[in-house]
Amino acid sequence: MSLIQSWLASANRPDNPFPVNNLALGVFSTGDDDPRCGVAIGDMILDCRAAERSGLLEIPGGGFFGQPSWNQVMQAGPATWSALRARLTGILSRGSRDEAAARQHLTAMSDAKMHMPFTVAEYTDFYAGRHHATNVGTMFRGADNALPPNWLHMPIGYNGRASSVVVSGSDIRRPWGQLKGPDHDKPAFMPCRRFDFELEMGAIVGTPSNGPVTVDQADAMIFGYVLLNDWSARDIQAWEYQPLGPFQAKATATTISPWIIMKAALEPFRVDAPERKVELLSYLKDTGPMLYDIDLEVSLSPQGSDGTTITRTNYREMYYSAAQQLAHHTSSGCPMRTGDLLGSGTISGPAKSARGSLLELSWGGKEPLRLDCGEDRSFLLDGDTLTLSGVAQGDGYMIGFGQCTGTLLPALEAPYTA
Amino acid sequence: MSLIQSWLASANRPDNPFPVNNLALGVFSTGDDDPRCGVAIGDMILDCRAAERSGLLEIPGGGFFGQPSWNQVMQAGPATWSALRARLTGILSRGSRDEAAARQHLTAMSDAKMHMPFTVAEYTDFYAGRHHATNVGTMFRGADNALPPNWLHMPIGYNGRASSVVVSGSDIRRPWGQLKGPDHDKPAFMPCRRFDFELEMGAIVGTPSNGPVTVDQADAMIFGYVLLNDWSARDIQAWEYQPLGPFQAKATATTISPWIIMKAALEPFRVDAPERKVELLSYLKDTGPMLYDIDLEVSLSPQGSDGTTITRTNYREMYYSAAQQLAHHTSSGCPMRTGDLLGSGTISGPAKSARGSLLELSWGGKEPLRLDCGEDRSFLLDGDTLTLSGVAQGDGYMIGFGQCTGTLLPALEAPYTA
Repeated sequence: MSLIQSWLASANRPDNPFPVNNLALGVFSTGDDDPRCGVAIGDMILDCRAAERSGLLEIPGGGFFGQPSWNQVMQAGPATWSALRARLTGILSRGSRDEAAARQHLTAMSDAKMHMPFTVAEYTDFYAGRHHATNVGTMFRGADNALPPNWLHMPIGYNGRASSVVVSGSDIRRPWGQLKGPDHDKPAFMPCRRFDFELEMGAIVGTPSNGPVTVDQADAMIFGYVLLNDWSARDIQAWEYQPLGPFQAKATATTISPWIIMKAALEPFRVDAPERKVELLSYLKDTGPMLYDIDLEVSLSPQGSDGTTITRTNYREMYYSAAQQLAHHTSSGCPMRTGDLLGSGTISGPAKSARGSLLELSWGGKEPLRLDCGEDRSFLLDGDTLTLSGVAQGDGYMIGFGQCTGTLLPALEAPYTA
Repeated sequence: MSLIQSWLASANRPDNPFPVNNLALGVFSTGDDDPRCGVAIGDMILDCRAAERSGLLEIPGGGFFGQPSWNQVMQAGPATWSALRARLTGILSRGSRDEAAARQHLTAMSDAKMHMPFTVAEYTDFYAGRHHATNVGTMFRGADNALPPNWLHMPIGYNGRASSVVVSGSDIRRPWGQLKGPDHDKPAFMPCRRFDFELEMGAIVGTPSNGPVTVDQADAMIFGYVLLNDWSARDIQAWEYQPLGPFQAKATATTISPWIIMKAALEPFRVDAPERKVELLSYLKDTGPMLYDIDLEVSLSPQGSDGTTITRTNYREMYYSAAQQLAHHTSSGCPMRTGDLLGSGTISGPAKSARGSLLELSWGGKEPLRLDCGEDRSFLLDGDTLTLSGVAQGDGYMIGFGQCTGTLLPALEAPYTA
């Protein structure tokens, strides 16, 4: 696969994240206009609602762009997804007879405000990166018991809170919570002191299921991927998580990037999962390359300072693919719906510089991280802006995910108004 | 509070669960008709959609009954809830000038099929019954470590799966899952062998929140209550739940009763929480009686046999109220939405005959339960029908919850079709 040339020059630059090969899907608004569906192309956005109304963007089944979300397209299934990509490629490629018409529906990305690209039905977060699970397990249980006994047999996950998922750019309020330090004899209700990020990818369920699905069926159900930051209150988590898992520690917010990268755009970047230390049960077995070679990095900017890249890793470091996670998720018969969001789990590489959370980077606060501006960080401070970015590097082009960013605001002085 | 007489004789019988005092809200259909909102009265249902269209049931804000769910009323808030109850009471009470008009919109309950009464936004399940937590903890960790250290300080909960919530009467398919018995050296993928019920109440969030709310604010947000059976695969749970909590063990199905009992109907039955062993933090403190005196029982009927009552207990046995659970749920800033469903956690009383799950009743399978038909049960067998029922007993009248029932079907022979 090489670059598909567009009549829009900015889409052909090798460092542009949004060539015709990508066709990233978002929801945007400009000025006082309503949010509406758009496709990223170069440094512009094609307004899908306007293009549909003018007759330019007709997809069999029709009428997809009346709502400010991609759920209707997602639910329509793979034939519609292919038809959409084919039509958009036809419109946006160099030599298209639709160039003049399409140019009327372009908006500069820099003028657009981005909104949630889809309605999240439910949100599930996994714990499926082996380096992350090993690091966290070593800190909490020692190196000999780092991985729980079930870990190599199934993708461990828990249900998160869909109502807390926000789009990149949303400010994040440091939470209050019940916590108890090792040096305290009683718990207290106070602002979180160990607020952290988690570098993840989010997989989005397109077509629903009702009953167990195979790994191949699960892969076919996935519509696309986003970057995902699962903000985490480590001190709240430490006190609450036994015996039923994380709850309020993960409920403040989860941020996703504004552009859905369709699975089709990522096909050239499929890679095999890491070597299996233990043979997987049949229902979870790898049936082909289902991870993706996506370079990921995280930047941390204290208020008023430039950012420091604090992590560089790759999505291929995961032990379980999103398809395996989704297959496991349905194994009990759990119905999955259009818009279900599956967080990969924190993506850490083997190197120290490839760790996907401050908990790991600062080793539980014992080894604070030195930023370029000279400040140290164990956990996030008020005013810090954290930004994830991701790119799949092709031959002369790239598939970019854009950015997933958020700034941490101070905790409310008093959380209760009554 | 005493019985409010109706012009409908069946609503005035002291053993009828649905007097004018109750005004239970459901969604029903008859024959080929669409599902629509209805109110239970005696052995009949008042068709709210038809009553609204005819001009009989006008509520300020109007147009509430076009959708087959109560979410729109729930979202409208307490003033609408009160107006609805006042108007329905006016229509249905003895001497009402609306009797003749209302009689045109009555359907026999026995002719109606019941549907989900509301759209579940998200589902959270708690672990807030002290006797249950003590029983389970004793089995798993011994009597000295029965309650986790955090248990007396906060209502422990985890996020469940809204897509798996079904209405009473839905058949339940025994799940497959990954499990590993203590006698096995490797996990296997097989049908669950320890399938169980959990007797719970469900609280339904009416008005949304965005940020921490107090216990009093939380109580005001609650629209009503249902019976809830959190079907549980104990063997799947035992293998998967460390370290992130129950996942597929709780994702097969959760059944709720078809009638929402509004909080207002339960006001006369408010009771205080049990004595606090440890002082609660301010944000969780009791501010008044927020539990309810509701008698609960569970019946188990093997296929072709009469039912045996296997549990009798009361909702007042809970340690934390739904208002406290909801306040804790928002403490991190987690947004709550109309239609969020909060399971109380299993409601067990102190007596052996008051235990709310087979896990406790059969003490992990060590003391099988003898049914009236002569069969023994440690966990549920295929064909078993399990029924929860609940009643608040007033002076010459009762507020009934109806029933929450489901029959266990055998596991699929082969779960995968591909």
